[in-house]
Amino acid sequence: MRVERADGRYIQYYAFDEPLPSVLDRPQAARPADGLELRWNPLLGEHVVISTGRQDRTFLPPPESCPLCPTDPAAAFTSEIPSPGYEIVAFENRFPSLRLDAAPPASGSALERRERAAGLCEVLVYAPRHDATLASLSEAQVRHLVDVWADRYAELSARPEVAYVFIFENRGREIGVTLTHPHGQIYAFPYVPPRVQREHELALRHVAGGGGCLLCDVVAEEVAGGERIVATAEGFVAYVPFAARLPYEVHVAAAAHRPSLLALSDAERAGLARIVRTVQAKYDHLWGFTMPYSMSMHQRAADGADRAGDHLHIEFAPPYRTRDKLKYLAGIETGAGTFINDTAPEDTARALRASAPAT
Amino acid sequence: MRVERADGRYIQYYAFDEPLPSVLDRPQAARPADGLELRWNPLLGEHVVISTGRQDRTFLPPPESCPLCPTDPAAAFTSEIPSPGYEIVAFENRFPSLRLDAAPPASGSALERRERAAGLCEVLVYAPRHDATLASLSEAQVRHLVDVWADRYAELSARPEVAYVFIFENRGREIGVTLTHPHGQIYAFPYVPPRVQREHELALRHVAGGGGCLLCDVVAEEVAGGERIVATAEGFVAYVPFAARLPYEVHVAAAAHRPSLLALSDAERAGLARIVRTVQAKYDHLWGFTMPYSMSMHQRAADGADRAGDHLHIEFAPPYRTRDKLKYLAGIETGAGTFINDTAPEDTARALRASAPAT
Repeated sequence: MRVERADGRYIQYYAFDEPLPSVLDRPQAARPADGLELRWNPLLGEHVVISTGRQDRTFLPPPESCPLCPTDPAAAFTSEIPSPGYEIVAFENRFPSLRLDAAPPASGSALERRERAAGLCEVLVYAPRHDATLASLSEAQVRHLVDVWADRYAELSARPEVAYVFIFENRGREIGVTLTHPHGQIYAFPYVPPRVQREHELALRHVAGGGGCLLCDVVAEEVAGGERIVATAEGFVAYVPFAARLPYEVHVAAAAHRPSLLALSDAERAGLARIVRTVQAKYDHLWGFTMPYSMSMHQRAADGADRAGDHLHIEFAPPYRTRDKLKYLAGIETGAGTFINDTAPEDTARALRASAPAT
Repeated sequence: MRVERADGRYIQYYAFDEPLPSVLDRPQAARPADGLELRWNPLLGEHVVISTGRQDRTFLPPPESCPLCPTDPAAAFTSEIPSPGYEIVAFENRFPSLRLDAAPPASGSALERRERAAGLCEVLVYAPRHDATLASLSEAQVRHLVDVWADRYAELSARPEVAYVFIFENRGREIGVTLTHPHGQIYAFPYVPPRVQREHELALRHVAGGGGCLLCDVVAEEVAGGERIVATAEGFVAYVPFAARLPYEVHVAAAAHRPSLLALSDAERAGLARIVRTVQAKYDHLWGFTMPYSMSMHQRAADGADRAGDHLHIEFAPPYRTRDKLKYLAGIETGAGTFINDTAPEDTARALRASAPAT
């Protein structure tokens, strides 16, 4: 069920068709459409999103005013979801970095190029329960989430403005998460992000050198070696990569060649749900607290063209290097763009393998 | 004056020739040479340094056991500098990520390539005073530091193992600094780091498109426009770049074409000292506390070859997006490799321009 909000934003309810009390959608302050543009960084050949309307975004609200909880019709507070219940919802971010109606930018020059920040930022709420995590949800709910990911990916990829649909989750105050309710985000970019472009380039080089799909070859070697495997499920493998940039980094890749979520069989979708839950359970059990991380999904670009390196995978990047020490990105990482990993990937894989599986 | 330590490391004293009481160089635990290698990340085409011997490195010690203070001959504690005094010193890091005697790695495969982590990590201590900062040091001391940077750059570049000399400083607990005594670091890499390689590629593209030195052209446009200029000094310009990735990011670039520190005139060296001090004073005055940042210097690679884009510049990357909120690198930045900047570079430049100059 899709609902248009009073301020023009949409909200998509999945597997939830009860009539909504319209009184809950109280008018909100109009969203400013200015202060948003893309700028081209000529030194690094990449876009930067300049977005000046977001500094006042909601910052660690108390549980009773969580904007991602269902709205209690008896209370004065209306959350971002104007309904007393839901299963999974996707809606337009109230503080977006990209929007379809972004204003055209001022004119620039060859070295100071500006473009419209035309795209979409969605919030994807996993469950109504405020203190849930992907690992604590039932397998059925996570399986449902995989279908929602696929649906959002297909819908957003079909928009003409969109070049790349990036599904991700930030979890934990340690990486700056401002809302603790279980949710992910989707950015529908008007450009293919630099990290994904780089993957395409390297995959193309691998093919030019006589290889097949680079990630197919990498996964085959991980499976054959086995010492960095963390978990497996139908159609998916989780491993700490050979040259992990970060301690406790885990990649979840399709075992066979699957360019996107849309290429998965039903059994593989179930396998993806299972392995994502398993990895999270292992993370959370490792040190006895909910592991913060960013989780990023890489798959085929929105134009649907078949590029080398289109191979569905998810990367988990936790910020801890030990149980009580964070890995910071400082001069070496930001200034030189190179990573020092203080752990051996074989050791972190062993620790995660031994950590508890999902129940 | 250069001294060989009991554990084989060197320490270089600048402008300090007093005889050292040898009793201060007490033997230390031997440094393990294993657990260190380069791994090649085939997905992104970059080296990752795997360095497993550093997890126990000194972490925020109390002032009386600061390893970068001078050593008191009457005390039991020996710092990393076994002398009762010094001006500026450079020495081999006790917990290096790269070392000249790194062990040869185990054999790998095409997709799991290992290399020796052969290089050097130096610590560069700016002053004996524990609570100094670059901005609080005298102009003469910072001018001296510029000469030391040039000397270290020349010496380390001349080593056959070294491909790139990377001079940087991390400042502030917010970015994980474990020692507060004013100091920088130098990594002499056996490869040209990815960020610098990327700059070379883009500079080459600019030349192929009919441009000159890319940074010369960028600086000329910044100076002509003026709205993002933060400060100027003899031969140098400080500005917030048009497409700054981070709020309050500042670049300090040579105004004319200078590939490295070694190409600077005496007046330009003085200008560099002055502008670095000025930028830091503006940072520290902006919000009334010592601004954390990483500072990275980019210049010509160690082979001395003339590459497009060889233009000396320093990048300051502070982690704050407002006075009390940090900018975290999460899914968008690490997973997509793209940056959302919540501030307009023209606004942050104006704020820094209005902030106090160095005294």
